Amino acid sequence: MMEPTSPITVRFADVVAAAGRLAGKAHRTPVLTNRSINERASRDVTPREIFFKCENLQRVGAFKFRGAFNAISLIPADDLRHGVVTHSSGNHAQAVAAAAALHGAAAWIVMPRTALPVKRQAVAGYGATIIDCEPTLADREKTARRIQDETGATLVHPFDDPYVIAGQGTAALEFVEQVRGLDLIIAPIGGGGLVSGTALVARHHNIDVIGAEPAGADDAARSKAAGQLIEQTSPQTIADGLLTSLGGHTWPIIRDLVREIITVEDSVTIELMRFFIERTKHVIEPSSAVAVATALSDQVLFNNRWRRIGVILSGGNANIASLPWSDS
Amino acid sequence: MMEPTSPITVRFADVVAAAGRLAGKAHRTPVLTNRSINERASRDVTPREIFFKCENLQRVGAFKFRGAFNAISLIPADDLRHGVVTHSSGNHAQAVAAAAALHGAAAWIVMPRTALPVKRQAVAGYGATIIDCEPTLADREKTARRIQDETGATLVHPFDDPYVIAGQGTAALEFVEQVRGLDLIIAPIGGGGLVSGTALVARHHNIDVIGAEPAGADDAARSKAAGQLIEQTSPQTIADGLLTSLGGHTWPIIRDLVREIITVEDSVTIELMRFFIERTKHVIEPSSAVAVATALSDQVLFNNRWRRIGVILSGGNANIASLPWSDS
Repeated sequence: MMEPTSPITVRFADVVAAAGRLAGKAHRTPVLTNRSINERASRDVTPREIFFKCENLQRVGAFKFRGAFNAISLIPADDLRHGVVTHSSGNHAQAVAAAAALHGAAAWIVMPRTALPVKRQAVAGYGATIIDCEPTLADREKTARRIQDETGATLVHPFDDPYVIAGQGTAALEFVEQVRGLDLIIAPIGGGGLVSGTALVARHHNIDVIGAEPAGADDAARSKAAGQLIEQTSPQTIADGLLTSLGGHTWPIIRDLVREIITVEDSVTIELMRFFIERTKHVIEPSSAVAVATALSDQVLFNNRWRRIGVILSGGNANIASLPWSDS
Repeated sequence: MMEPTSPITVRFADVVAAAGRLAGKAHRTPVLTNRSINERASRDVTPREIFFKCENLQRVGAFKFRGAFNAISLIPADDLRHGVVTHSSGNHAQAVAAAAALHGAAAWIVMPRTALPVKRQAVAGYGATIIDCEPTLADREKTARRIQDETGATLVHPFDDPYVIAGQGTAALEFVEQVRGLDLIIAPIGGGGLVSGTALVARHHNIDVIGAEPAGADDAARSKAAGQLIEQTSPQTIADGLLTSLGGHTWPIIRDLVREIITVEDSVTIELMRFFIERTKHVIEPSSAVAVATALSDQVLFNNRWRRIGVILSGGNANIASLPWSDS
């Protein structure tokens, strides 16, 4: 039996339009290179350069600001009067809170009771109202729906929304302007918002895209292999930003425009996270380290076609007081 | 009884000459600003901007590369054939090793047996020869002298050398080009090489300079107060780059050209180090955090004359696997 093929719902032009809305609001983040990392990437004598797009230096410390801001910009004024709502324990919570504040809109952020105090403080610091829920997806969604009903607030989805995807794509749009001649871009995959936006831009420039996924949350890799969307159940990874399943808007883009998904074991992610921070002096979160590890994986480095490799560092919100390694 | 007043032995022109030698060899490091930090600095309603000169992104991860490279450039070829030698357990060891390698010169680095393996590996990675010694200043100096005698190598002092001071000043030279209208520059003080080079540049541009010193190693503050060089005995601070006493070349500059020394308790340094890393996603070492803490101290912020404040982040070689705080 054939599955019906769902169409792609976002276009390159949506990313360009999002970039216009984000101008002067999001940071145009810098691109980093590092001699030690380039040497490590050139191990089989093929000279390679790896370029890192520093979304760890984006507002709220992650690319999520881009998508949230773009989506909120497009809410009609009559609706925006009633505010926005989302559920998240991570970067999307801060992104929606910050973007809503810039629009003068109220924000309700549904957060699990188990969320770290530092994350709650950051969200509250943007003036958002935090609503507690149980740490289950079911209760998060139920609580968000209740807030929608009570307030009329508009839901801002963390990834499965064409405007969110278009916003995330603006990082890649800047990247290809900042670095000429990229032949591959690697982005981490959780729900797929970042890699989807990236793929729209990369396709326009004939650049390959690889999704970087934790081995313990490999729904995208399995979905690609199966040719149909497979949901993630009981993910196990330190990359806490990459636990989610793909969605109805991100899956068709990943299916059609992402070349392949490479999975990374947590032990490798941890080693590369430490290597990256020690060499570059930039803090990245585990989700970013999954993409760094992918760039330095055999699967990538055995392909001589890829010489100028772009990596999107998704964010830097690691809890530096408990990094996942013990002292050497 | 009057002390004889020792003269200043380095001039602004020496810094400019050093910049010429370092062009294309040292990184022109970027300048960082951060919204949260500016808000914290503007707490009494006076708007302030703090600019961070990122020597944590310099080669070897610290400003020390500048001075070492400049000093080695000026060793006559006949002497340089015999190599260079220094004693250091920290950034200067890597700086001399890297700068010597770029000159094709041999380097002997005397390191205490207690130096961290990661530091030894870094030095060895530049092709330098590591010579073990006991972890005392006396044995370090004695061992370095022995190597000099045996090999004819030239000693590269970590700070008390006019060419080293001139090299360190090039960070400030770039800083004043990168940020117009600075009215204060803050640099950490250990042996005083960085703050001395900075002061030569700042004087030329009529910019105030403050030295940032750990309260547990406050020889510069006491020397300034006494009007004469007082040696540091039994320093106690986590800022392991700032343990040293001033020297005969750095003291006259600090005496005459540095406006004041502000001392910082380690507890404040640790808090600001964490705040800085969390907000900026840049790793800095404790010595740098002493300067960050000084910029946000009451002594600085109660002075309304200082609105555009430059801070030199001396380096980023913190051992990220054992940062000095426990989890929150």
